[in-house]
Amino acid sequence: MRTREIEITTGGRRGVFDLTAQVTAFLAETAGGGDGLLHVFVPHATAGVLVMELGSGSDDDLVDALDRLLPRDARWRHAHGSRGHGADHVLPLLAPPGLSVPVLGGRPALGTWQAIALLDPNADNPRRRVRLSFLPG
Amino acid sequence: MRTREIEITTGGRRGVFDLTAQVTAFLAETAGGGDGLLHVFVPHATAGVLVMELGSGSDDDLVDALDRLLPRDARWRHAHGSRGHGADHVLPLLAPPGLSVPVLGGRPALGTWQAIALLDPNADNPRRRVRLSFLPG
Amino acid sequence: MRTREIEITTGGRRGVFDLTAQVTAFLAETAGGGDGLLHVFVPHATAGVLVMELGSGSDDDLVDALDRLLPRDARWRHAHGSRGHGADHVLPLLAPPGLSVPVLGGRPALGTWQAIALLDPNADNPRRRVRLSFLPG
Repeated sequence: MRTREIEITTGGRRGVFDLTAQVTAFLAETAGGGDGLLHVFVPHATAGVLVMELGSGSDDDLVDALDRLLPRDARWRHAHGSRGHGADHVLPLLAPPGLSVPVLGGRPALGTWQAIALLDPNADNPRRRVRLSFLPG
Repeated sequence: MRTREIEITTGGRRGVFDLTAQVTAFLAETAGGGDGLLHVFVPHATAGVLVMELGSGSDDDLVDALDRLLPRDARWRHAHGSRGHGADHVLPLLAPPGLSVPVLGGRPALGTWQAIALLDPNADNPRRRVRLSFLPG
Repeated sequence: MRTREIEITTGGRRGVFDLTAQVTAFLAETAGGGDGLLHVFVPHATAGVLVMELGSGSDDDLVDALDRLLPRDARWRHAHGSRGHGADHVLPLLAPPGLSVPVLGGRPALGTWQAIALLDPNADNPRRRVRLSFLPG
């Protein structure tokens, strides 16, 4: 397994951050043009990873849906940090911190419209780490 | 890694489509009776994959729950195609496009009641592709 | 692939059950201090696995959020067992039964606050099985 941790600067903005270019570069360096499985993992309790189409408003649609499903209000027992931060600790019920994507010929076998993205609903962290791993098949 | 793309004809019906027979056949041909990890991935931005019990009404229950959590109305910024299609672009918040299942002796190590299924909430596509991959362990 | 099934006694309590110690012990015995991918899978149709921060009330917050998103009432077509049990059959829409975590030097590469947990919303089963698998990389 080839593995590397990268750092994403969110600047404390809540939202969806495209990782596809970094993933593609990682595979170009490590996969040797081969097949296998890519794994993406965020070692943070309040962030997730997604494969989705970015742009055309879907990024903001997704954050709106998240905030409606897990409202940032005073209901949460886990109460510290910014108002509603307890919602972030329940994020893994919806968006897990890891995902896998098949790799063919050293490239992620994504569909035309798919991107690999970090979902960070938490404005308290300006930087996030993401671990990329390639298992040759 | 042995990998193959199959095509599923949904006929433009929204719902849950059982993939277990195709997955089992794929493993019978490629896994050589061995152990490893099966990966299932849909290269589409508006479809997901699930492991769940099918039948007894759960398929329709799941689509109803999805439509309640991500309503097919005019709220979505991403607005094209059928009414409410913006909801489909947010599907990855709930149901991701990929999943892994352990393989033992060339067979998926599912529980008695578990099936592997495609979730397609999008009536605009009569056909979907699904990539099946087996990583020998 | 090294793989083992463990049994978790929930005692019929609904909630979140920490698996991290068992996972770490499994990897200590099987991973030989190496790198690879850990896969965790529950062969049950009405349970899921999560990576999340446990404690500080988040466990109960998560079960409350689940019960609000998939209410345990009479709406479900799949109707048997305890009241609202149909909701459990839709759980895979939110929390899938499988997840992967990178393994470095024989240990799960979790973040400081992350734990691996079984989510069991179903009080009808006092015991659950969980399959742990390690794919050397």
